[in-house]
Amino acid sequence: MSAVPPIPWHATVLTLYPDAFPGVLGASIIGGAEKSGLWQLETVDIRDFAVNRHRTVDGTPAGGGAGLVLKPDVSAKAIDSVVCPDDSSTGNIRDDRPLLYMTPRGRPLTQKRVRELAAGPGLVCFCGRFEGLDERVIESRNMEEVSIGDFVLAGGEVAAQAMIEACVRLLPGVLGSADSLEEESFETGLLEYPLYTKPREFEGREIPAVLTSGDHGAVDRWRRAQMEEITKARRPDLWAAHLKRKNSPET
Amino acid sequence: MSAVPPIPWHATVLTLYPDAFPGVLGASIIGGAEKSGLWQLETVDIRDFAVNRHRTVDGTPAGGGAGLVLKPDVSAKAIDSVVCPDDSSTGNIRDDRPLLYMTPRGRPLTQKRVRELAAGPGLVCFCGRFEGLDERVIESRNMEEVSIGDFVLAGGEVAAQAMIEACVRLLPGVLGSADSLEEESFETGLLEYPLYTKPREFEGREIPAVLTSGDHGAVDRWRRAQMEEITKARRPDLWAAHLKRKNSPET
Repeated sequence: MSAVPPIPWHATVLTLYPDAFPGVLGASIIGGAEKSGLWQLETVDIRDFAVNRHRTVDGTPAGGGAGLVLKPDVSAKAIDSVVCPDDSSTGNIRDDRPLLYMTPRGRPLTQKRVRELAAGPGLVCFCGRFEGLDERVIESRNMEEVSIGDFVLAGGEVAAQAMIEACVRLLPGVLGSADSLEEESFETGLLEYPLYTKPREFEGREIPAVLTSGDHGAVDRWRRAQMEEITKARRPDLWAAHLKRKNSPET
Repeated sequence: MSAVPPIPWHATVLTLYPDAFPGVLGASIIGGAEKSGLWQLETVDIRDFAVNRHRTVDGTPAGGGAGLVLKPDVSAKAIDSVVCPDDSSTGNIRDDRPLLYMTPRGRPLTQKRVRELAAGPGLVCFCGRFEGLDERVIESRNMEEVSIGDFVLAGGEVAAQAMIEACVRLLPGVLGSADSLEEESFETGLLEYPLYTKPREFEGREIPAVLTSGDHGAVDRWRRAQMEEITKARRPDLWAAHLKRKNSPET
């Protein structure tokens, strides 16, 4: 395991459901890595920044419609308690971690963005609930809107956990072997090849002969062909992007 | 709240980390809905189906390479314990829930697929770990490979939780109002419009005047225009699909 860096990667999550954390982030190598000090997780309860005695955090949408909207004043106070945009008045040091807002309206999360986030000091992440957050907070705090996929969740918490898990597994020392990071899906722009392990025969199905041939060149060619075939069949969008990269004059 | 159906929607998750559950699914309205009997969650520990005294669940990849692969025999036994593909020998009734495998190589999860899953009896979900699952199990058990996004997780657990949360919030009785499901992102094929709530002025930023005008037609037109503009700017892929649907002769 690598040496622990002096200031570990640090995720702060703003949520109405701090009891949803650590959730999956407390299990497996991800939870173990936090216990080993390789990264840190902290939650901030948005409701602690409510201003009235009912601890109200939401209001009806301006213009009408169903559901509720997270109040701008309460949400901004919760965010500012972490990132301190008003340095002069508080005397605090401005937090230089990216401020993300999990929402289906956001830019789809990619492995490229995950790598950037993992390479930085950590992240601050605001979990949407109800219909969402007042637009003026997103604008004034210059929040990066991130979506994990084209489906709608009950809140941003599980999206935040997915994003944080994707980042943490890339931190030095978290996975046993850095090799295993190189050939996996998206790192090459293609989906991964099919995997096989012993026994050689399973219910009459054999491991493809090339994989047990001992011919490393043939194995590599077979895997590459499989990656291209699977990507072409399942993800024409990724395949088109791959061809574009391949045919561009820079590469 | 609607009446509880006789057999609630039922999710069974096969995992090496049962302690990662319920995780986020135990919190908020999703956890509350399980306590109310509106749905059920069950985990099966894949390791319980290991055959040797070391409880081995993984092996080295055939053909070489880094990392480990989930063994086909152990994985298949775990799956079969839930779905009983061999009716004649066990006398058990075959499980008619879809069998999903969470993997970045899968088809991207969409709100359309979430709606289908929510309308059915539930789902059985296998969480990948290490490099992934032996291909022969995916083929022989006819598993539906599902990805929640173009990034790589430490395991399928958080992806399973995201998918289950997306389904559960659509079950009758889980959300207070069915109205709020209609206008949200992806249900219309477009991203949602910006949201605002009181106060009318926040840090010098006013709620757009049209939203406080009381003119419902103008509000609807403004929101529609915003949805189109945001989708066009952020998600050219969704916008192209929207135009295609709009210009197709069936609609």
